[in-house]
Amino acid sequence: MKIAVDAMGGDNAPEQIVKGVAAAREALPDVEFILYGKKDEITKYMDDFRNVQIVHTDEVITMEDEPVRAVRRKKQSSMVLAAQAVKEGNADAIFSAGNTGALLAAGLFVIGRIKGVDRPGMTTTLPSLQGPHDNFTMLDVGANAESKAKNLHDFAILGNFYSANVMHITNPRIALLNNGTEYDKGDRVHKEAYQLLNDDSSLNFVGNVESRELLNGAADVVVTDGFTGNAVLKNTEGTALSMLKLVKDTILNSGVKGKMGGLLLKSAFSQIKDQMDYSKHGGAVLLGVKAPVVKAHGSSNANQVKNALIQVHEIVDSKLVKNLAEYFDMHVKCIQQDEVDKPRENN
Amino acid sequence: MKIAVDAMGGDNAPEQIVKGVAAAREALPDVEFILYGKKDEITKYMDDFRNVQIVHTDEVITMEDEPVRAVRRKKQSSMVLAAQAVKEGNADAIFSAGNTGALLAAGLFVIGRIKGVDRPGMTTTLPSLQGPHDNFTMLDVGANAESKAKNLHDFAILGNFYSANVMHITNPRIALLNNGTEYDKGDRVHKEAYQLLNDDSSLNFVGNVESRELLNGAADVVVTDGFTGNAVLKNTEGTALSMLKLVKDTILNSGVKGKMGGLLLKSAFSQIKDQMDYSKHGGAVLLGVKAPVVKAHGSSNANQVKNALIQVHEIVDSKLVKNLAEYFDMHVKCIQQDEVDKPRENN
Repeated sequence: MKIAVDAMGGDNAPEQIVKGVAAAREALPDVEFILYGKKDEITKYMDDFRNVQIVHTDEVITMEDEPVRAVRRKKQSSMVLAAQAVKEGNADAIFSAGNTGALLAAGLFVIGRIKGVDRPGMTTTLPSLQGPHDNFTMLDVGANAESKAKNLHDFAILGNFYSANVMHITNPRIALLNNGTEYDKGDRVHKEAYQLLNDDSSLNFVGNVESRELLNGAADVVVTDGFTGNAVLKNTEGTALSMLKLVKDTILNSGVKGKMGGLLLKSAFSQIKDQMDYSKHGGAVLLGVKAPVVKAHGSSNANQVKNALIQVHEIVDSKLVKNLAEYFDMHVKCIQQDEVDKPRENN
Repeated sequence: MKIAVDAMGGDNAPEQIVKGVAAAREALPDVEFILYGKKDEITKYMDDFRNVQIVHTDEVITMEDEPVRAVRRKKQSSMVLAAQAVKEGNADAIFSAGNTGALLAAGLFVIGRIKGVDRPGMTTTLPSLQGPHDNFTMLDVGANAESKAKNLHDFAILGNFYSANVMHITNPRIALLNNGTEYDKGDRVHKEAYQLLNDDSSLNFVGNVESRELLNGAADVVVTDGFTGNAVLKNTEGTALSMLKLVKDTILNSGVKGKMGGLLLKSAFSQIKDQMDYSKHGGAVLLGVKAPVVKAHGSSNANQVKNALIQVHEIVDSKLVKNLAEYFDMHVKCIQQDEVDKPRENN
């Protein structure tokens, strides 16, 4: 297995990327890592090149670059070269902690979409604090600013497959993020999406879910349009961090000043941070393209890069994309057949 | 001043509504409360009718009623009669803790819109944990499932006025909730709304804000479409509650089991709950209709009802709606004049 790594993407690149690769190499002896970027900078952080190949390039896509333009013009950038290697079959997957928009564009325009998927969806895994599983999958969290009902239906199919095959959840409960739980809630797109999900007997669709219930494990796959999904993901992060800080400050100011209190809080908060840390499930995955495209947070450290690379390995190992393409193709055919066989029922 | 109160709306109606009115009466000696609902049930919780008038009706709009249909058909319901009293000038404002959708419909169809406002916006006040003020105003949080750019611009004008006149914030910072801070972020509607806000020199527009920054006091008025605003509001509530529970459970399970630890946590958490409790700023206000329409949480207790009634009093007292209507009218005329005077610049 070969993983193409954009060694120059991210706030702490190339140091933390290279160190993450070195750590992942110990856990994944069957992987050859191809690192794209400035050779002299990369070699500063690695002196043993076992299972590692470096492809030198000076060009880099920065966080400030306009994504689509950067991918079109910076043909020799570490990210575009890595995507090109995947397209040409020289690598099985691409990993980057760089410019998210540019990675989406590289996935879409260089690697290309799976047949039948109009818009890929950015997919992330968040913690469930209650319910049968300790995490859930949500998509789209921001690949698309505008979505049609058909896109949301595709996200459900992609998410269902990811949850079952990569998160190993049997018969995942699929829900649609909406502004109320009743079937007729939402704008035109969400009402129409509800019908598509409800009519699709291959999905274990459990109905609408409100954003209030997300962390309570209300569903295993939460389907949302990219604009709302992005707002909800960022709001969850922001509110969780604000609450932790508020609680910490309040408790420390209200009497627990002694050594014991401080130690106690430190241990409790480190446990909570671990429980809420969704980077332990890896990065965000662009589902719906012809190869695994995995994005880690720009601020990732070596350990988080390692986790994301282990996730990339699992995705490639499970043949997710190949199976997804077959499943999707078959699924689309079944629906078309259904429509030929019987007129759609009304609710 | 007369406030029409839907005595039958809410999970704890009429008991907590009536008790809330009794408490508010002490704080607001200049108000006459007109309570709409079942007389025998209302009188169970009140024996002194100073400044209180009861208008008996048996009909009630329930939480399960389809909003628009309920308002159209249940003409004798406590909510519709209260709205009718406002429309006819027999009361200055309406308060309800009942069916939100029905109250929106009553505001829209019975009381009616301010001239120039196509879609009223549901407005709420949330805590700011950092920044110059301890709260911010957000709208629309769910009156509309679909919004146009013009609606978002109207929400900004309405929110600006509410923040300045009711929350007493000087020159409020207005931001647009979007999926990135750059000016060209978002879907078509949000890109267009950015331009409208940016071109409106009467607003102190500070640009786009991401949902991650809301509780950090990034703006005094956060403008959003009703679908995203609803998702973000519910997500903030849900995440804050989940985090509090998680922290409490983790700390209690990690050693603070003694009496001292328990007492300490109790005091810290009660302080945090108070800081996060946005019902102390009153209920949600439907801005853009011809009289104040204030909605409290369905689960409100007497104290929360009292807070919301004090807010209703402040809104009426500040002549918010009258000033808003004049301001809005003038503002629309200025923009029209601007458009006549000079072609719009492009960014």
